[in-house]
Amino acid sequence: MRLEKFKTALIQHAIKPSLNQTLSFVAAQIKKAALDGAKLIALQELHNTPYFCQSENPDFFDLEDFDSSIDFYSTLAKEYEVVLVTSLFEKRSPGLYHNTAVVFEKDGSIAGKYRKMHIPDDPNFYEKFYFTPGDLGFEPICTSLGRLGILICWDQWYPEAARIMTLKGAEILIYPTAIGWFRGDSQDEKVRQKEAWIAIQRAHAIANGIPVLSINRVGFEPDTSGVSDGILFWGGSFGFGAQGELLAQASSENEEILMLEIDLKRSEEVRRIWPFLRDRRIDSYSDILKRYCL
Amino acid sequence: MRLEKFKTALIQHAIKPSLNQTLSFVAAQIKKAALDGAKLIALQELHNTPYFCQSENPDFFDLEDFDSSIDFYSTLAKEYEVVLVTSLFEKRSPGLYHNTAVVFEKDGSIAGKYRKMHIPDDPNFYEKFYFTPGDLGFEPICTSLGRLGILICWDQWYPEAARIMTLKGAEILIYPTAIGWFRGDSQDEKVRQKEAWIAIQRAHAIANGIPVLSINRVGFEPDTSGVSDGILFWGGSFGFGAQGELLAQASSENEEILMLEIDLKRSEEVRRIWPFLRDRRIDSYSDILKRYCL
Repeated sequence: MRLEKFKTALIQHAIKPSLNQTLSFVAAQIKKAALDGAKLIALQELHNTPYFCQSENPDFFDLEDFDSSIDFYSTLAKEYEVVLVTSLFEKRSPGLYHNTAVVFEKDGSIAGKYRKMHIPDDPNFYEKFYFTPGDLGFEPICTSLGRLGILICWDQWYPEAARIMTLKGAEILIYPTAIGWFRGDSQDEKVRQKEAWIAIQRAHAIANGIPVLSINRVGFEPDTSGVSDGILFWGGSFGFGAQGELLAQASSENEEILMLEIDLKRSEEVRRIWPFLRDRRIDSYSDILKRYCL
Repeated sequence: MRLEKFKTALIQHAIKPSLNQTLSFVAAQIKKAALDGAKLIALQELHNTPYFCQSENPDFFDLEDFDSSIDFYSTLAKEYEVVLVTSLFEKRSPGLYHNTAVVFEKDGSIAGKYRKMHIPDDPNFYEKFYFTPGDLGFEPICTSLGRLGILICWDQWYPEAARIMTLKGAEILIYPTAIGWFRGDSQDEKVRQKEAWIAIQRAHAIANGIPVLSINRVGFEPDTSGVSDGILFWGGSFGFGAQGELLAQASSENEEILMLEIDLKRSEEVRRIWPFLRDRRIDSYSDILKRYCL
C-alpha cells in the first residue's frame, strides 16, 4: 500500500565553482534529506549548472552531459530509496535541446520525464535560444508516492498547465524554478515580483485542490557575457497545501533543505467543501484554445 | 478620449431590514462615492436582498423585481454620471432565473449584462436551486471606461473564466461576491478560507496582467429556515493591480466605500516585462475542455 503521508525535501542551493563541486554538494544534500526521512526529494531548475540562459552562447550547450546526469541521479535515488525530481539540460539530438525534468523511482529507474512546455525569452532569461518547447504535453508522472505533476519555472505563470495536470490526475504539482531579481529594480518592484510569484503558484493549489511545491535557486550569478549585472536568485522555495495553506517556506538568502509533510488525503477533504471541479463550464471554455479573441 | 486613470469605488455593506431601506442606503453610498470622484462604482453580489440562497424556498423568487431594480440603478448611474456595476436577481421567465450583473453606462443606458456562469451548491449556498447557469458566455462589457470583465463570486475560483475574459479584451476583472464564515469553523479554517479567496483572485490579476476588483458583503445574516447558524460575511473587498500589487482592501467587519485608482496603462507595462500571453501553448490545452481525463 502506498503512503498517504510522507516527508518531502526541497533542496534550495547556490551554484558551485565547478560541475563536480555542484554535483558533490547536491548529492550530500540528497543524502542528508533522505537520512532525515524524506521520501520525495525535489531539486531546483537546472541545478547542475549555472543559469546559463543569461546570455546566448553556443558553447553552453556543452555545459551538461544529459546521460551522465541521469546515471548520477539514478544511483542516488536507488542508494537512498527516494523518489527524486531532477531538472536537467536534455540533449535530444544535435541542435535539439530541452529543459527537462527527469523523475527517478526509488529503485533508480526513470519514472518519467517532463519537457518544459512554456519557454520564456526576456532579458537575462534567453531560454528560447536553448530549449525547444516541450512536446510531451502535461502528463503526470506515476511514482510509488503518487502522480507527480512536474512543471518548470515559466510554466508556473500558466493556470492552464496546472489545471490540465490536475485533470490528468496529478496529486502534487512540483515546480523546479530559477527566478531572481535584477540589481536595478527598486525594492518595491522586487517585493511585487516575489509576491506575485508566490501568489500565482498558491492559486494553482487552491484552484485545483492539490499541494504545490516550488524549488528555487538562491544566490547571485553573474552574466558571463558582461552585458548585464546578473541575477540575484531569490530562493524562497515553498510548499502550499490543497487549500492554499502554507506548509513551509525557505529564506531568500540561504541554501536550505526545506522539509515538509505531504498529506495526499487532504485533497479530497478540501475538494468536498470546495468542489470546483464539479462546476467547471467545459461547454464554454473553447476560447481558451485561441491566442486572442479580438 | 477615454480616461486612462480614474477613481473607482467598491461598496461593501450589510443588508438592511427591508428592501426599501437597503435601496436607500445603497443609493446614498453611490451618491457619496460619486461626489468623492468615483467614475466607476461596483456593488456586491445580490446587494438588494439578503443572501437568500442559505435555504431553498420558492417564495424567495419574489424577493426582487428585476425590472424595477434596473430602473432604479439606471436613474442613479445617469444622475451621478458613473459607470455602475450591479448584481441582481434576474427573472427571465417564470421558472427561469439568473444571478445577473447589469452594467449601466454613465448616461443610464444598459452597457451590458453578465449571467453568472459557475453556480455553486453547498450547504448555505444553494444557488443551483435559484439560478440557471449563465448562457451569455464570458463576454466583457464595453463601457466608456473600458471593457469590463464582470464575473460573479463562485466564478472567482475558475482561472478559465478570468483567462477567457482577458482573451476577449477585458481590461478590468470585477467580482461581485457573497462569501463568509460559518460559526462552527475554527479560527485556522477561517484564515485559510479568506486567504485562499484573496490569493486566487490576486492570481487572476497576475496571470492575465489586468487589475482585479472584488466586492463582498459584510455582516451576519441568519439562515431564515433555522437549519443552520447563518453566515458571517467577511467583507475584505479589495483591488489588485495588473502585477498583483494590492491597491486597497476593506476591513472584515465594517461597511465601507473602498476607493482606489485604476490605471489602465499599467497592464501594458506589466505585460511587457511578463509577457505571459505571448507564450501560451494553445496547441496543448485541449484537455482543458474535458470534465476529467482519467
